[in-house]
Amino acid sequence: MFEHRSSHPILIQEVGPRDGFQIEDCFIPTADKIDLIDALSLCGLAKIEVTSFTSPKAIPALADADEVMRGIRRVPGVVYTALVPNLRGAERALAANTDELNLVMSASETHNLLNLRMTREQSVARLLKVVDLARGTGAALNVSISTSFGCPMEGAVPEATVLGLAERFLARGVGGITLCDTTGMAHPGQVASLCGAFRARFPEAELTAHLHNTRGLGLSNALAAVEAGVVRFDASLGGLGGCPYAPGATGNVCTEDLVHLFQAMGVPVAVDLPRLLAAARGLPELVGHDVPGQVLHAGRSQDLHPVPASLEAIRARAEA
Amino acid sequence: MFEHRSSHPILIQEVGPRDGFQIEDCFIPTADKIDLIDALSLCGLAKIEVTSFTSPKAIPALADADEVMRGIRRVPGVVYTALVPNLRGAERALAANTDELNLVMSASETHNLLNLRMTREQSVARLLKVVDLARGTGAALNVSISTSFGCPMEGAVPEATVLGLAERFLARGVGGITLCDTTGMAHPGQVASLCGAFRARFPEAELTAHLHNTRGLGLSNALAAVEAGVVRFDASLGGLGGCPYAPGATGNVCTEDLVHLFQAMGVPVAVDLPRLLAAARGLPELVGHDVPGQVLHAGRSQDLHPVPASLEAIRARAEA
Repeated sequence: MFEHRSSHPILIQEVGPRDGFQIEDCFIPTADKIDLIDALSLCGLAKIEVTSFTSPKAIPALADADEVMRGIRRVPGVVYTALVPNLRGAERALAANTDELNLVMSASETHNLLNLRMTREQSVARLLKVVDLARGTGAALNVSISTSFGCPMEGAVPEATVLGLAERFLARGVGGITLCDTTGMAHPGQVASLCGAFRARFPEAELTAHLHNTRGLGLSNALAAVEAGVVRFDASLGGLGGCPYAPGATGNVCTEDLVHLFQAMGVPVAVDLPRLLAAARGLPELVGHDVPGQVLHAGRSQDLHPVPASLEAIRARAEA
Repeated sequence: MFEHRSSHPILIQEVGPRDGFQIEDCFIPTADKIDLIDALSLCGLAKIEVTSFTSPKAIPALADADEVMRGIRRVPGVVYTALVPNLRGAERALAANTDELNLVMSASETHNLLNLRMTREQSVARLLKVVDLARGTGAALNVSISTSFGCPMEGAVPEATVLGLAERFLARGVGGITLCDTTGMAHPGQVASLCGAFRARFPEAELTAHLHNTRGLGLSNALAAVEAGVVRFDASLGGLGGCPYAPGATGNVCTEDLVHLFQAMGVPVAVDLPRLLAAARGLPELVGHDVPGQVLHAGRSQDLHPVPASLEAIRARAEA
């Protein structure tokens, strides 16, 4: 049976403004991005991935990274993180007073080459330069390891490969590692195994599980991660986001669905779900299409439907 | 961590042709229904809910119940069941050589009144008449208890209410009980609790979990049910189906997503997933809209994507 062994409450890290918005066709106006992030800041989230300091040519949807990071209202206790691909991005992120730099590379060589146009060794070298640059600036560092639970081209990725990459960054002073199920290949047994192995080997590291719901297993995998001692979860408002290498697939685990599950199960999580749902309700207009979040459509399980006025007439007729 | 304690393989019971098709706006031609059920019969499913012997006025989509039940090719080992609301329906089902009569009522008084226009006591009395009629005919009997995990109008339904209803039918000779999460209100802890209590109190009864994915918890709830000793699951091809009292909500747990999860986890389930996916692939054309099944869209996690031809050029450029 499910057990949440840690006494630590679950921490929810919103990635929608980066991981979700980056694949939208339309450019979401800077002011709307800032408004959404400001609303999210009041929801009890531990961290918000605000944007990506990538070249505007590479990701036009996030070309306003600097303005967004400078424009948001910081709420004490919330960590404002941003994706940073290289030294140039790190300089921009630091200049915009980003709390945490989130670096990214893939555990699979094929995925790293296709996604980042570098070998894994080249990525490690490039990211370690960013780590060295950030040292002493006060900015925290996290490395997100894509395809940690499998590569859509190569298939299984050995746990030793993932843990070996993590070790190189942790040894250089990186505080957090995110294990990403980039295309939703993980199943609960695998999540328990890799996250458990990570926790045992790196008990001091901040571990985040970044799960996708591509094959409907996002929430099941989250429960398995909790059982393996994970307390930090990336999630995306409305379930925004996806992956270009898994066409037709839904993307990130949906923030409000994940919080709804934890709250229903009595797992401690300090997020204000009604406020989160209020923020999510504006997404379809913002992005111009429906979003996959299910609690947004169905309501929370404890939100009851009104009894129809006809009930008493039905009862009277039945009993006649 | 997840454990499948039973040595019994998981049995999958397809409900799409009844629970799915009954809410479709279009009338699916009888021959197409029969073709689909015949294809499903070759997939390793334990049971198929073929149709509902309801009044054609109540459910026009299944007005061809008799022709469908008589027209399908029976495969030995597969149980062909049908929903039966009353004595008239039972007579029709028995005349069409239905293997099992599936009776239905709600655990919640409000839902029973709205859905069946009867009090629960009236439903019990009516269904027990069907039980008595079927005795000695060779047909098996199952009772599906709707809103076992909560009523969208009343909220929580006490476990004692559900188990007390089950007991009245089991005492009269009914062999199987299905606990239905009709509007997807259940969470894994609750599923473990109610299914565990059922198994402990009625160890000889055939117990089925009928789960919905309304709030994204269908598969998580299924894993919790397996841990509680449940081996029978209702599921609907493509995730067809829903509930009129939970507007905008997705419906039944998707058969191919459920089988995919079990197979990924190494839980024994004798279903031919590629064949099932082939049958599901025809659904959007059959019902005239997309279906929520996720493995249908994303493919199985072990189905790899081809490495793009450009990979070697990318590698060469990176290494140059």
